[in-house]
Amino acid sequence: MKIIQHNEIGSPANVLKVVTQAAPALAAGEVRVKILATPIHPSNLLQISGHYGVAPQLPAIPGSEGAGQVVEVAPDVTHLKVGQRVLVTGGGTWRDELTGPAARFIALPDVGDIEQLSMLTVNPLTALLILNNFVALKAGDWIVQSAANSAVGEYIIQLAKQRNVKTINIVRRADLAAGLKALGADAVVVDGDDLKAQINAVTGGAPISLAIDCVGGETFSRMVDSLSFGGTIVAYGALSMTPPKLNSVAVIFNDVRVRGFWLSKWFETASQADKGAAFGQVIQLIASGALKAKIDARFSLDEIGAAVARAAESGRDGKVILIPTPA
Amino acid sequence: MKIIQHNEIGSPANVLKVVTQAAPALAAGEVRVKILATPIHPSNLLQISGHYGVAPQLPAIPGSEGAGQVVEVAPDVTHLKVGQRVLVTGGGTWRDELTGPAARFIALPDVGDIEQLSMLTVNPLTALLILNNFVALKAGDWIVQSAANSAVGEYIIQLAKQRNVKTINIVRRADLAAGLKALGADAVVVDGDDLKAQINAVTGGAPISLAIDCVGGETFSRMVDSLSFGGTIVAYGALSMTPPKLNSVAVIFNDVRVRGFWLSKWFETASQADKGAAFGQVIQLIASGALKAKIDARFSLDEIGAAVARAAESGRDGKVILIPTPA
Repeated sequence: MKIIQHNEIGSPANVLKVVTQAAPALAAGEVRVKILATPIHPSNLLQISGHYGVAPQLPAIPGSEGAGQVVEVAPDVTHLKVGQRVLVTGGGTWRDELTGPAARFIALPDVGDIEQLSMLTVNPLTALLILNNFVALKAGDWIVQSAANSAVGEYIIQLAKQRNVKTINIVRRADLAAGLKALGADAVVVDGDDLKAQINAVTGGAPISLAIDCVGGETFSRMVDSLSFGGTIVAYGALSMTPPKLNSVAVIFNDVRVRGFWLSKWFETASQADKGAAFGQVIQLIASGALKAKIDARFSLDEIGAAVARAAESGRDGKVILIPTPA
Repeated sequence: MKIIQHNEIGSPANVLKVVTQAAPALAAGEVRVKILATPIHPSNLLQISGHYGVAPQLPAIPGSEGAGQVVEVAPDVTHLKVGQRVLVTGGGTWRDELTGPAARFIALPDVGDIEQLSMLTVNPLTALLILNNFVALKAGDWIVQSAANSAVGEYIIQLAKQRNVKTINIVRRADLAAGLKALGADAVVVDGDDLKAQINAVTGGAPISLAIDCVGGETFSRMVDSLSFGGTIVAYGALSMTPPKLNSVAVIFNDVRVRGFWLSKWFETASQADKGAAFGQVIQLIASGALKAKIDARFSLDEIGAAVARAAESGRDGKVILIPTPA
């Protein structure tokens, strides 16, 4: 059994090692799963290098999510069968095989792209929950989002389009517009001092009740100024690493509301019913191909150094994904 | 009939004039009220000098609220009688007599200090609605507020005390502590870089689910950092005139929520039932003496220049109030 492991906090390309271990025997209630695909997220790189909210316990096996196939089940496990495709929850997914309690694995349908399914927990759930949980959006409503070419941003474009909610997508480079429009973006604007005016020109002054921000700093402040009375801005990231200045006039006189979203906390606090509903919705959307992310490159576990280097590059176009055992 | 009027935007002491006019005849449905007391609020001064969200239409008669006594009623008005004490709504209250539709006047009980009752719409309603409308507070909970020695701040201390909600009160000068503690403040802290540590020392680490801010700037940022998971900060003013830096980590990882409160908008949007309930609660509290504000000085209409000068001084201790016709 091959795992990716680090014994110290540091630059991912330096500290990550490929380690071969004997596979453990299967205990009661456990399932053994062959990992077929597991993505590299920016948050994984931040965590390995010690720049994330929660520090990993060392030695650590990174990886937030993945998809695989059941290869062995303990005799007392009845709801999962050998051959069943499953989603792996609970982290530590950068490996070719994983053994754990059956409850860690969520059954996947036989249809649907396994690479797309392997990425469904982190970004699609974030996009879905931000759209569902803060503002009641109706068909025809406008929303605005920053970092629109991020993975979450692209899922939001697709989900909004399916609901006939119109998106204004903020990016840093005009050449990203065509790709986002092909996904369903209604408008793409380039961030700058005139952001509010650009947004107004797009909507013709129609109200914007939801802004979704992953950038912070001036971008956040400009989005606050673009919201209509009673609008909500939801922050789920702060890529600029700059705290935004908050416009008190907007908050007090325009009733703008600021909220945050952190998926890990949602997992801790949401009810089982809410989780089941959200997973069910996302699995259906991804298995049917209605929701997808671009994949920039695939690497084997042995290529982990090149994989994390590519994942850290700003020029890539889509996700970097580990295929532990390439066909 | 004497009114205070300004024909231009500018420094209140310069532009406000005492004007004597003939009193209009009473039309159908109207009531004539002798104004007994009407306060000078900071927002009145800001509006006269052109620094408020809404500019006055000139010529303008300032004044947000007041209390008076009915001196004449049109024959078709049945629910108000001569001699009845009333609250004046709708603004333009800096005058000795006011004639208007009966709906502008809310009946007051015969008991209760008329000066205290004259100030009940702006500050006590703000305090009550901020405590009622954002976070469900239970007896024993801690809240924190800035500008604790402001009129709203002192009403919040009294209202919280009545509910056994414990208050941490942020001020700029330590010598304000005794006065606030006499009103019911549980703790008084002086703003500074160590605000979060001071607050923690007071609560012993107990959660704080509501922060109420009228200052903005660094004070707002420090209050955000003092909130517990899922806590809400409500801004109702920005005395520092400095936009706060918003801590994205608190918003995203600690689920801190930012809201604003503006009483004028509440008047526009609240239901008649909500308004009736809020006014009923405040009238009862003030008429019974359970809720009161300090009065720093009283002036007649003829002393308007001295009155607005005193209202603009930072050293005063309580409200400045106009008594149009001193006894």
